[in-house]
Amino acid sequence: MLPILFLIPLLLSTTSHASVQDFCVAETTASDTPAGFPCKPEANVTSSDFVYTGLSVPGKIIDLINAAVTPAFVTQFPGLNGLGLSALRLDLGPGGVVPLHSHPGATELLIVKSGHITAGFVSSANSVYIATVKTGELMIFPQGLLHFQVAAGKKGAVAFAFFSSPNPGLQILDFALFASNFSTPLIAKTTFLDPELIKKLKGVLGGSG
Amino acid sequence: MLPILFLIPLLLSTTSHASVQDFCVAETTASDTPAGFPCKPEANVTSSDFVYTGLSVPGKIIDLINAAVTPAFVTQFPGLNGLGLSALRLDLGPGGVVPLHSHPGATELLIVKSGHITAGFVSSANSVYIATVKTGELMIFPQGLLHFQVAAGKKGAVAFAFFSSPNPGLQILDFALFASNFSTPLIAKTTFLDPELIKKLKGVLGGSG
Amino acid sequence: MLPILFLIPLLLSTTSHASVQDFCVAETTASDTPAGFPCKPEANVTSSDFVYTGLSVPGKIIDLINAAVTPAFVTQFPGLNGLGLSALRLDLGPGGVVPLHSHPGATELLIVKSGHITAGFVSSANSVYIATVKTGELMIFPQGLLHFQVAAGKKGAVAFAFFSSPNPGLQILDFALFASNFSTPLIAKTTFLDPELIKKLKGVLGGSG
Amino acid sequence: MLPILFLIPLLLSTTSHASVQDFCVAETTASDTPAGFPCKPEANVTSSDFVYTGLSVPGKIIDLINAAVTPAFVTQFPGLNGLGLSALRLDLGPGGVVPLHSHPGATELLIVKSGHITAGFVSSANSVYIATVKTGELMIFPQGLLHFQVAAGKKGAVAFAFFSSPNPGLQILDFALFASNFSTPLIAKTTFLDPELIKKLKGVLGGSG
Amino acid sequence: MLPILFLIPLLLSTTSHASVQDFCVAETTASDTPAGFPCKPEANVTSSDFVYTGLSVPGKIIDLINAAVTPAFVTQFPGLNGLGLSALRLDLGPGGVVPLHSHPGATELLIVKSGHITAGFVSSANSVYIATVKTGELMIFPQGLLHFQVAAGKKGAVAFAFFSSPNPGLQILDFALFASNFSTPLIAKTTFLDPELIKKLKGVLGGSG
Amino acid sequence: MLPILFLIPLLLSTTSHASVQDFCVAETTASDTPAGFPCKPEANVTSSDFVYTGLSVPGKIIDLINAAVTPAFVTQFPGLNGLGLSALRLDLGPGGVVPLHSHPGATELLIVKSGHITAGFVSSANSVYIATVKTGELMIFPQGLLHFQVAAGKKGAVAFAFFSSPNPGLQILDFALFASNFSTPLIAKTTFLDPELIKKLKGVLGGSG
Repeated sequence: MLPILFLIPLLLSTTSHASVQDFCVAETTASDTPAGFPCKPEANVTSSDFVYTGLSVPGKIIDLINAAVTPAFVTQFPGLNGLGLSALRLDLGPGGVVPLHSHPGATELLIVKSGHITAGFVSSANSVYIATVKTGELMIFPQGLLHFQVAAGKKGAVAFAFFSSPNPGLQILDFALFASNFSTPLIAKTTFLDPELIKKLKGVLGGSG
Repeated sequence: MLPILFLIPLLLSTTSHASVQDFCVAETTASDTPAGFPCKPEANVTSSDFVYTGLSVPGKIIDLINAAVTPAFVTQFPGLNGLGLSALRLDLGPGGVVPLHSHPGATELLIVKSGHITAGFVSSANSVYIATVKTGELMIFPQGLLHFQVAAGKKGAVAFAFFSSPNPGLQILDFALFASNFSTPLIAKTTFLDPELIKKLKGVLGGSG
Repeated sequence: MLPILFLIPLLLSTTSHASVQDFCVAETTASDTPAGFPCKPEANVTSSDFVYTGLSVPGKIIDLINAAVTPAFVTQFPGLNGLGLSALRLDLGPGGVVPLHSHPGATELLIVKSGHITAGFVSSANSVYIATVKTGELMIFPQGLLHFQVAAGKKGAVAFAFFSSPNPGLQILDFALFASNFSTPLIAKTTFLDPELIKKLKGVLGGSG
Repeated sequence: MLPILFLIPLLLSTTSHASVQDFCVAETTASDTPAGFPCKPEANVTSSDFVYTGLSVPGKIIDLINAAVTPAFVTQFPGLNGLGLSALRLDLGPGGVVPLHSHPGATELLIVKSGHITAGFVSSANSVYIATVKTGELMIFPQGLLHFQVAAGKKGAVAFAFFSSPNPGLQILDFALFASNFSTPLIAKTTFLDPELIKKLKGVLGGSG
Repeated sequence: MLPILFLIPLLLSTTSHASVQDFCVAETTASDTPAGFPCKPEANVTSSDFVYTGLSVPGKIIDLINAAVTPAFVTQFPGLNGLGLSALRLDLGPGGVVPLHSHPGATELLIVKSGHITAGFVSSANSVYIATVKTGELMIFPQGLLHFQVAAGKKGAVAFAFFSSPNPGLQILDFALFASNFSTPLIAKTTFLDPELIKKLKGVLGGSG
Repeated sequence: MLPILFLIPLLLSTTSHASVQDFCVAETTASDTPAGFPCKPEANVTSSDFVYTGLSVPGKIIDLINAAVTPAFVTQFPGLNGLGLSALRLDLGPGGVVPLHSHPGATELLIVKSGHITAGFVSSANSVYIATVKTGELMIFPQGLLHFQVAAGKKGAVAFAFFSSPNPGLQILDFALFASNFSTPLIAKTTFLDPELIKKLKGVLGGSG
């Protein structure tokens, strides 16, 4: 039933001529485009381009928040380019917190690896959705909305977040306000926060202006 | 050159049989879907479905911000449904301010109708981009980033904003925090703001928790 | 409550390492791609990249149509690149007209700045939707359909149009036919217009063939 | 190597519980949405939902254009719903013509079945791209641009066109102008065509206004 | 600085009037559409709609593959609707295997929770990319390509997979061929597998035809 | 009514300044991006960029399958770049077969040019949809699902397939398994096929491992 196939290379060559874009491993040294980075030549792509080991160990804890946030976005993991997904590791010490933040345009799906996490987001209608999720449980944070995660109870927690974009962005509210050069009068004007408080928080977080 | 055409109704009927979806005026009483509302039957659509007059007059000024924000999103203007655009009118009294806010997932393109407006946004890298724009000038606010607009100088200003979605959302930072039931301890924990300040602002903006 | 933060630079550096694509200001001298131009390096981006002043003054009126059409597409305003929006200014003298045209693939949302404009579009079902819109009123023109704008009454008018693409295109029917080298016999064959009329209009609009 | 599998129904049921949306055959009697029609229940879907026979015979020729245009859009072929493709059959008698037209937002890829066809489109830059294509040759017409097809030489031709949308729309210039109720003065004003000519063409094509 | 705000309800009501589509929790009893299910009314949405606990415990192991595959797609977790993400839990006993399969149109990003997993995919160019990933490591499987996961070494493993769609589909090769009613002669003809082998595998997996 | 137009070049130049992206003919020697290849300069684009003649003649038949598959993807036909469509010619001798395969992420719409073709696909729910289609009939194969085509009856057949992507990919099951270096033990493990059979088929198709 299966005759010797002398001619198979012809079909093979026909179909492999095409540079098929199953994937597009980022050439991160080239200029980005609105759809992502240019592709590394397929001939140079190996299995290791599709693997990322950087989230297998805890990130370095920041004292202020007793937490670490370690991204595996397209810049860290070029194999994600053009494929609509990325990830992030979250390490929370006891009482640790990922301060209020948003991902411009990407939805986040969080899975708890260990511990309990209280997390929540606020909708455009100013409704607050908060839940405490445990090991193996999922919580979704719709795109672009302010949200947070804190370690629940007295222990720390670890979680992984997955995003609907290889480059979701991460805008941390306190850093946007107090670790930037956003001028204190303008912050006060547009948030109703007290200028003295703003200056104090800038002192802590390194902001100027 | 143009013979009498007895048969043209045939071609007309052939092509008009198709329910062509050039547009999809929202049936806003039906359930929404991720791509927008179901369409009103084409037979009931009239020119007025494509016109919206609600932005032709100033919105009602809110004392606290000396500003009015009047949306023409798909709920107000059903003709926008499925077409990737919407609008909003912004009236600023002298010193008026649209407090820090974001549109989850939609980019905003602002045009100043009268007066001068100082506006800005903060990027994920905590860079602050601020400019003062005048009548007829445009400023773009990339999707999902915190931004603000304030009347510059001593006069008021009017502007129109256009969005890359019929339903861009509008998350005002102060309202998300202080006009919601977001619990004060959680706000304090995730923003480093002082609980007393939070309670004071909740008193002003109507929040609880 | 807020301890001195010596370690914050670590978190900052973690998150700022990522070349986050909040925006992608066009490097318009590079080759375009189907998703837009490559991005200008973020380090070179300034506030002025997000502002465009070219629509603040009237365009130069063309006698034939007593109108001016001034685009703020991605080529003129590189900050729009990848963000799904663009704009255009329309100046109409008394009786001025933007001749029948379409934007291939982009929807248009028009706002009248001054005067009255009669505008309309034709659907695939050959239905005609026409309305007269006044200062501050909006009208939407669904993607790809033939539409027009004319100054209503005896005065001129000014309007701004916003598009659901940074590069919406603009195909003006008369220019496609009579300002191109589209051969007269083929135009006659595919429009049923009289060859003499076509030649006359080509004479006016500069067409050949 | 392959033990008897008593437990396989468990896995099967796990995976078949999910209503997987591989396809979404249109329930064309329900209201359309911006993304297409609601889906027919999967239990009622059969092989015949994925087959369409309506293009296997010539359409009825219209004398005026000596051509027939037969669509297989989502309304005719509900299996296309949500899948990003549709088709159309084109029968051209000798000298037959598909008058200048566009598909709002969809690109067209034409393949000639028999005969020779001269086809072309005009770009936003008013460049005209015309070619004569023969049996088995392909020509692409980018989305939203005015284009035409005419039988080349002295014989008729047959072709099939494929579209990048299940519902591409079809706006025929002459029908938009002369088979609608678009008022003659407005057509004249926005096209520079002579009112007498417009009336004459309306007489032929059935327009009013 | 913060005057009593009597008028704030006005602004609140203005912005909360809009049914803002930050999310669209699926009404899974309604008909699906190409973009997902219709939305549950926002008033009925609670925090629990955004949480899914079904992946926190191991799935029921199937003897044949010594593995369990437990989906958290939109049907199981309606909060995912319209948000571009979903998940799945994978439990592998020692030597356990997820047989060769693909997800039509969705990319998969896998994270190992415990153990070692050897996984791989085959590209359109018939290149095979295989790697062994450990706890906390990520591997990406580009959309629509055949791939597999097996427990490496002598122990079992657990992993979670995340997808770039709320409804990614799951086509398991052996089930498509041998647990369906795909006729044996057609399978033989289109795969070159021996009919006797096909019948034997159908006996094991429950196929017919 | 039509005054001499001295000023028309001004409007022309205004609108032609814009590099309008009606199309983006691929510069296939440049690096690909996730959205396609960079564009060839518009000034170098000619009509021939939009025509492809490579499918007008039969492909070279492969003995094993008595069939030829000839793609017109973006690599062969650069004019398709960014336009969401491509094509392929299928020549089947008597009894010829296109073995079970899928297109990762693209839907296929097949039209029969001559002869009868029995074709089918398997869904994620392991339902099999099979039909025999004749000259001029269409069949749709939803994205990413395994499908096949065989010549029905005793004669050969010719068909053209159209895809919802300029670069749909083509993963032929037998080639992925038996014409690659996918190791025999892993194939056996993940498909339950007998290692001896795998080796035999690799011998025929040129696989290794």
